[in-house]
Amino acid sequence: MSNFVYRRQFAIEWGHCDPAGIVFNSRFFEFFDWSSWMLFEAALGVRPGDLAKTFGIIGIPLVDAKARFLRPAKFNDMAEIASEISRFGRTSFDVQHRISIAGELAVEGSETRVWATQDPDDATRLRGLPIPAEVIGRFQAA
Amino acid sequence: MSNFVYRRQFAIEWGHCDPAGIVFNSRFFEFFDWSSWMLFEAALGVRPGDLAKTFGIIGIPLVDAKARFLRPAKFNDMAEIASEISRFGRTSFDVQHRISIAGELAVEGSETRVWATQDPDDATRLRGLPIPAEVIGRFQAA
Amino acid sequence: MSNFVYRRQFAIEWGHCDPAGIVFNSRFFEFFDWSSWMLFEAALGVRPGDLAKTFGIIGIPLVDAKARFLRPAKFNDMAEIASEISRFGRTSFDVQHRISIAGELAVEGSETRVWATQDPDDATRLRGLPIPAEVIGRFQAA
Amino acid sequence: MSNFVYRRQFAIEWGHCDPAGIVFNSRFFEFFDWSSWMLFEAALGVRPGDLAKTFGIIGIPLVDAKARFLRPAKFNDMAEIASEISRFGRTSFDVQHRISIAGELAVEGSETRVWATQDPDDATRLRGLPIPAEVIGRFQAA
Repeated sequence: MSNFVYRRQFAIEWGHCDPAGIVFNSRFFEFFDWSSWMLFEAALGVRPGDLAKTFGIIGIPLVDAKARFLRPAKFNDMAEIASEISRFGRTSFDVQHRISIAGELAVEGSETRVWATQDPDDATRLRGLPIPAEVIGRFQAA
Repeated sequence: MSNFVYRRQFAIEWGHCDPAGIVFNSRFFEFFDWSSWMLFEAALGVRPGDLAKTFGIIGIPLVDAKARFLRPAKFNDMAEIASEISRFGRTSFDVQHRISIAGELAVEGSETRVWATQDPDDATRLRGLPIPAEVIGRFQAA
Repeated sequence: MSNFVYRRQFAIEWGHCDPAGIVFNSRFFEFFDWSSWMLFEAALGVRPGDLAKTFGIIGIPLVDAKARFLRPAKFNDMAEIASEISRFGRTSFDVQHRISIAGELAVEGSETRVWATQDPDDATRLRGLPIPAEVIGRFQAA
Repeated sequence: MSNFVYRRQFAIEWGHCDPAGIVFNSRFFEFFDWSSWMLFEAALGVRPGDLAKTFGIIGIPLVDAKARFLRPAKFNDMAEIASEISRFGRTSFDVQHRISIAGELAVEGSETRVWATQDPDDATRLRGLPIPAEVIGRFQAA
């Protein structure tokens, strides 16, 4: 049994890059975020905009994000990002992202997200809900 | 009688700039947007987050934005932006923005925004409301 | 004879959207910019990163940008952007962009760009060069 | 002996926030980056644009970035970020950033950066240089 992996390719745009001619670091966290949404769509067949409603959650908010920058991604490079769930906890999970340029790993990162609902005692706060077994099962493609 | 002008100064950050070492164009529209909110706060004494509630509107959505780029703004430059209402229509208004670097005009732009409410017949659409005379009056500082 | 049109489709991401749940205006100028690069690649067969070197220019810097926002683009929408050169001047040109959601025009905008070299008398300034006839010819697909 | 701490305050802008009405995660990495530049300016008295030239380096590129999101930062919040060097290695260092809203810690993060020059054997790669003792000394304010 192995993890479901979502892959997409995208170009490094002029507007992604800084005066050193390489992708400005915050952009990688944009790439990660969108791949997490797309990973869920690919595994569950639920579009990003319908995820909360379908599962009775408020969303999958981020509580932790990190990245290691191994090689620069430059204007005009074609990047591939591969994303998978690397850990399912009871109410949270980790998404691992690997961005490669021309087959070489350029950036690796991860996000920790919560399967969240509104706290019934305090509408301004969130609370984790147990992640349904059916959701977890969908990410464990045979 | 002259227009109320809101001014602020800010640094050109590394992350604002592109591989040519100058501010990437979309950033200027971020600078404009925030100055429009701050212009309203300065003239009306109402914080951005309270504007809608205070005046019974849904917001001041943008329907048109433009910019002319006269001189480059570079990493490490100190910029000044001056913003004022250049036109009040019945339900819309224009905000003019001028960004200067070292006293020289670098970018000039404008936004057209609507004093908007939800369309009572179609919740997915907006409708302009007449801009209150008291609001207009506040921008015409003696 | 008609203009060469470059089209691409892309999803409206969570990170593109503001608290109103619609695309924040500056993002459209990012979409425009990248489509202009891709339009040149599609018409000339020259990758964005090679454009300057191939034609002996420093780039195609933006001197003017504008957009009209007709309908909101929301998280999870699939957008199509169609871009074409709407005017060739001697040393500058206009790119027109139209973004549609579900077949309805949502945003239209344009950019004015210069076919630019460094000013020989002042390395900090740019100067327009005549756009080669062969370049113009490539955008006028029969 | 204690670390030199650089603090700045800034407003959470409309354009920083996502459809949940809170700051989109990538923006925090923009805030971190700029505070690192400003920390160096504050400690060394060297403006960001002059840092490389002054010390004979190519820059202080990021090799690692991370953030933990403890409380949401919302539109209209006033944020304070406090930044300091938490580790000096031989050729790299860590910058720790703490963002507070109304006195409560909202986000904490860190960056690892390299005191870098171009690799003499391969111009496309960077190499760490020993961080000068005088630089380290400036961050250890009595």
